[in-house]
Amino acid sequence: MIKASIIGGSGYTGGELLRLLTAHPEVEVVQITSRKHLGEYAYQVHPNMRKQTTLKFTDPEMLEPADVLFLALPHGKAQHQINDWSGKAEYLIDLSADFRLRDPALYEKWYGSPHAAPDWLDKFVYGLPELHREALRSAKYVSGVGCNATATNLALLPLIKADLLDMDKPVICEIKTGSSEGGASENPGSHHPERSGVIRTYAPYGHRHTAEIIQEMGLSQVSLTMTSVDLVRGALATVHGYVKPGTALKDLWQAYRSVVADNPFLRIVKERRGIYRVPEPKILAGSNYADLGFDLDPETGHVIAISAIDNLMKGASGSAVQCMNLMLGFDETLGLEFSGLHPI
Amino acid sequence: MIKASIIGGSGYTGGELLRLLTAHPEVEVVQITSRKHLGEYAYQVHPNMRKQTTLKFTDPEMLEPADVLFLALPHGKAQHQINDWSGKAEYLIDLSADFRLRDPALYEKWYGSPHAAPDWLDKFVYGLPELHREALRSAKYVSGVGCNATATNLALLPLIKADLLDMDKPVICEIKTGSSEGGASENPGSHHPERSGVIRTYAPYGHRHTAEIIQEMGLSQVSLTMTSVDLVRGALATVHGYVKPGTALKDLWQAYRSVVADNPFLRIVKERRGIYRVPEPKILAGSNYADLGFDLDPETGHVIAISAIDNLMKGASGSAVQCMNLMLGFDETLGLEFSGLHPI
Amino acid sequence: MIKASIIGGSGYTGGELLRLLTAHPEVEVVQITSRKHLGEYAYQVHPNMRKQTTLKFTDPEMLEPADVLFLALPHGKAQHQINDWSGKAEYLIDLSADFRLRDPALYEKWYGSPHAAPDWLDKFVYGLPELHREALRSAKYVSGVGCNATATNLALLPLIKADLLDMDKPVICEIKTGSSEGGASENPGSHHPERSGVIRTYAPYGHRHTAEIIQEMGLSQVSLTMTSVDLVRGALATVHGYVKPGTALKDLWQAYRSVVADNPFLRIVKERRGIYRVPEPKILAGSNYADLGFDLDPETGHVIAISAIDNLMKGASGSAVQCMNLMLGFDETLGLEFSGLHPI
Amino acid sequence: MIKASIIGGSGYTGGELLRLLTAHPEVEVVQITSRKHLGEYAYQVHPNMRKQTTLKFTDPEMLEPADVLFLALPHGKAQHQINDWSGKAEYLIDLSADFRLRDPALYEKWYGSPHAAPDWLDKFVYGLPELHREALRSAKYVSGVGCNATATNLALLPLIKADLLDMDKPVICEIKTGSSEGGASENPGSHHPERSGVIRTYAPYGHRHTAEIIQEMGLSQVSLTMTSVDLVRGALATVHGYVKPGTALKDLWQAYRSVVADNPFLRIVKERRGIYRVPEPKILAGSNYADLGFDLDPETGHVIAISAIDNLMKGASGSAVQCMNLMLGFDETLGLEFSGLHPI
Repeated sequence: MIKASIIGGSGYTGGELLRLLTAHPEVEVVQITSRKHLGEYAYQVHPNMRKQTTLKFTDPEMLEPADVLFLALPHGKAQHQINDWSGKAEYLIDLSADFRLRDPALYEKWYGSPHAAPDWLDKFVYGLPELHREALRSAKYVSGVGCNATATNLALLPLIKADLLDMDKPVICEIKTGSSEGGASENPGSHHPERSGVIRTYAPYGHRHTAEIIQEMGLSQVSLTMTSVDLVRGALATVHGYVKPGTALKDLWQAYRSVVADNPFLRIVKERRGIYRVPEPKILAGSNYADLGFDLDPETGHVIAISAIDNLMKGASGSAVQCMNLMLGFDETLGLEFSGLHPI
Repeated sequence: MIKASIIGGSGYTGGELLRLLTAHPEVEVVQITSRKHLGEYAYQVHPNMRKQTTLKFTDPEMLEPADVLFLALPHGKAQHQINDWSGKAEYLIDLSADFRLRDPALYEKWYGSPHAAPDWLDKFVYGLPELHREALRSAKYVSGVGCNATATNLALLPLIKADLLDMDKPVICEIKTGSSEGGASENPGSHHPERSGVIRTYAPYGHRHTAEIIQEMGLSQVSLTMTSVDLVRGALATVHGYVKPGTALKDLWQAYRSVVADNPFLRIVKERRGIYRVPEPKILAGSNYADLGFDLDPETGHVIAISAIDNLMKGASGSAVQCMNLMLGFDETLGLEFSGLHPI
Repeated sequence: MIKASIIGGSGYTGGELLRLLTAHPEVEVVQITSRKHLGEYAYQVHPNMRKQTTLKFTDPEMLEPADVLFLALPHGKAQHQINDWSGKAEYLIDLSADFRLRDPALYEKWYGSPHAAPDWLDKFVYGLPELHREALRSAKYVSGVGCNATATNLALLPLIKADLLDMDKPVICEIKTGSSEGGASENPGSHHPERSGVIRTYAPYGHRHTAEIIQEMGLSQVSLTMTSVDLVRGALATVHGYVKPGTALKDLWQAYRSVVADNPFLRIVKERRGIYRVPEPKILAGSNYADLGFDLDPETGHVIAISAIDNLMKGASGSAVQCMNLMLGFDETLGLEFSGLHPI
Repeated sequence: MIKASIIGGSGYTGGELLRLLTAHPEVEVVQITSRKHLGEYAYQVHPNMRKQTTLKFTDPEMLEPADVLFLALPHGKAQHQINDWSGKAEYLIDLSADFRLRDPALYEKWYGSPHAAPDWLDKFVYGLPELHREALRSAKYVSGVGCNATATNLALLPLIKADLLDMDKPVICEIKTGSSEGGASENPGSHHPERSGVIRTYAPYGHRHTAEIIQEMGLSQVSLTMTSVDLVRGALATVHGYVKPGTALKDLWQAYRSVVADNPFLRIVKERRGIYRVPEPKILAGSNYADLGFDLDPETGHVIAISAIDNLMKGASGSAVQCMNLMLGFDETLGLEFSGLHPI
């Protein structure tokens, strides 16, 4: 049993980590911190954890010894504290956006200010096992992933890996997301009467997760268009690009099958009949799967790659636990076996 | 054309008044006030009013002359300011809870503090036309109504009026409500990920609207149990009581038909087949109707009276405009003709 | 008062026509037909019409004299019956897809079979006033519009009219829709447990409404990608294209302002702050407005045009009534003044 | 490893059994039958089971040898086939309503026709471990439970067990349910545009599950009032009764604590602050917990007992697997450890 601590544990990402790690057969959660909820039981903030844990939120200044630290702090915090945190445990997984990008200039362009610890960027591995499995096995510092970037990157991965995508043409990523993506704190736009039933294209361009797609997929012309819809957990990426001349649908099948065969949490969803013909996030709530679909207009080469994930699982805490499994030498799927529910 | 002003116009009740009065053929809205949104266009807060009005929010201290003032302030404000407001217009309709109760002791019991202007309580007429139509025709001061009280009072009205209810037995009112009832300001419980999909019996007893049912229905043993569900607009009251011995279903039919015949915004919904057999709030969004249903267990005398309303219309602003129509001598239904939508 | 009849009145489009025409000050609805619901009151199928109409569904074979016939039949019916229907009233508005396209070859390509009455195609005017206002004023035969085509066409209209769009580059239309678009009949995919909370890109390409965009916007490279989301009424089109070199954001502002000034039911929604910054369908339920937004990436020329509508109003019955107003010489907005609700 | 088969596996109850048993460490699912979906992969009907199982639906006539049979057939089937099924495996759990009641007269009263196998009624144990744990340990035939009955019975259990409830006074059970309770087959009322956002008191009295409350709680005066709300999984029972004179809130605390201590899947939810103060079904999706709350009006003795469950888990398949664990001597909670999700 290894010991794990969750720093910044009152948000949705921290809660999901608590759920996963508490049920993980090789992990003992020794601490969860929250300044705001100091002294409260963790289950008072994460009510699904009643009868699952008796941990209370503690002060992040008073750290218990642990093997792995999960940092689930707001974006921009960890880069100022990394020298401290890095000394507290052998393994560190930071779920914020702070250490996802390798290039300080790319960070500054998309986040609007210089990175506070640029020397640390190279020490981190980008925490998506489907992209960096081998590097993760020997990593000590791992970043989290952006949920929208993850949906997009996994949609594109088979096309990129098989070199089927025309990289000179623009890639347009249309992402639809649920409300949990906005975090656990309320704001005027998350007020239920205002948020219920919305179809709100709130960011036509410029979403910060674009940087992770540029970095990981090697794309230059790529845009993310973000639309909020009425769901709590889940994100769907519908990605439009163009294949290289001569690419046929069977090439896509081969590319997707190959990637899915190598990755335990990827599935192809492309049925000819029935009502579950395409990837849909709703049945993925709580699961670590990414479901992938695709289609091709052979006349124009317009390819549509689709990926559905649970933004709190494969898009955040699930991938982080999967990374921990790789870093610590556990089975990659350990503690992540939940299949998701149907109906839901 | 009469001139109307809305004091405290940035909330949901104020927005609904703005919508109704702007479209009302006999009314010109001359002012809408909001300290918080001072100087903003009203349509920036009530986006359905784009191209409907060019009014901006103004300072409540700077009042335009008007014939009717609608006060849509937070509960507890108007009772401290009533001497001021009452001099500003010939007609005053206060939508808060401040002047709904006639008895200062009843107010203090349910609201937890003494009323600040007890002498004014007698000057107000309770603003539900189905209960006080004649008094409203000559009233200058009219109170609003509690939405949950209104759903319950209208469910019970036919039974009370026909003297069919056993007043010695307890009446249990189970009320299910949408999220707009909580007002336009966000709070942790209204955050979409927390509020979506809830079935939350948040108040087993003690809801303040109980006082209006006691007062208006003459009931002594009555309790309100409040459950939040996933809907924005709408409230359903399912009211359990006992009929007097000898009461048959046909007596109920007669009682309900009689009340519905007298009231343009009441309808009986009690079909034997199809999917619209009982009152449902969802099709009432934007309409001023209250739909009434009932059923009787002849063995036990257990009667269930059901009433569905739009909490912002018949439960607040719609009834207020209906009162204005009566006070000013307009047709009672003027400006309130919208039928509601299906599907929705 | 003119007399109007609704043929095929039990679906959602027919119900919306009944609602609008019943409340229309210049129209008397003399008949609504339904074979399936023959003899039932219209309000038993359209429950919002209780106390609004006492019409019963009648047999379409037994036609009352009327000035205007609205055909709200399933797609593919009217083209086989047009010779009959055309003789029954002076004005005919067909809401199906049968007479929207002028070119029989375009029809056959997108609908998969030859048109049954190709000679009639030229006699119809495409029923979107924003595109054909003048022709509609003298038309006797008017087609309906596809809801997704309408959202897209209105999003693009300002760009096309001001000749700002690079017509040689592909236009990708991402459309998100509510469940009422699928009609009033249930199917496995519309079962609530399966349909609630979905984000389902059910048609990556090939939606039939594409043909109306090709025809009306003169586009050749255009694709529609359809995604179902959790909402009943509403459609949002997020349209990706490229502007001609040298086009700046201020040119877009001018183009949109110009089109909005000419059309009573178009509005620009593009706010810098607040939560209502972009077009959203939810507040349009029941209204005939189309809200338009746009944004430009000046580096790449990537333009995103957004349009929100109520698919049953501007996308179907609302536009049909607006057409009737133009055909009959009424004020164009008559009977279509409902502003929509907020919150909803 | 024991072998289990699911007869009638294409519905929601069957799908949930498949999910639970596939992940159960002591069970191998050897067969799942469906005439309607014969030959299809189980994951085509239960899409959460992709990559979890490669079973196909088989013919119920062609039975594999198994230790436990789960019958998930429509109500009314099993009683005609029980002599056949009972010979096919050592253990049989029937999830339908057919063998829940011990008294044939009670069955006939609530189900409207005589039972087809009254001799079998005594051989079955009612499958709620919280009521019949010891009997289940040695049972061969176990019935399922009604979901609404279960929510109600668990709400009342502490009061009944501690003898605090005045059995001479009526007990009114107000139950709010999600849409999955209606099963996997669509109908006009389950069509998303009609079902979304409903608050529909569809059954004021007479719900068949009442019989299970009468039988298990020993109540004579009890009524169930059923209201559908917008949620897929979940049921909340808000139960109104009266305590015996002299009963105080602390007696209730003691009664609930005692029952919760004895039952691994019961929890008390009664917080003074925060937003998770009362039992709510949404966070129970996929979990086997029943969350219990209560409150007392000391003036009148009016007690409100609240219970939230996932209707497909504790209200159906979860309890069935819990019964299997007891029958087979496994740990009672085995395979049922999933905590539920938050947010959801």
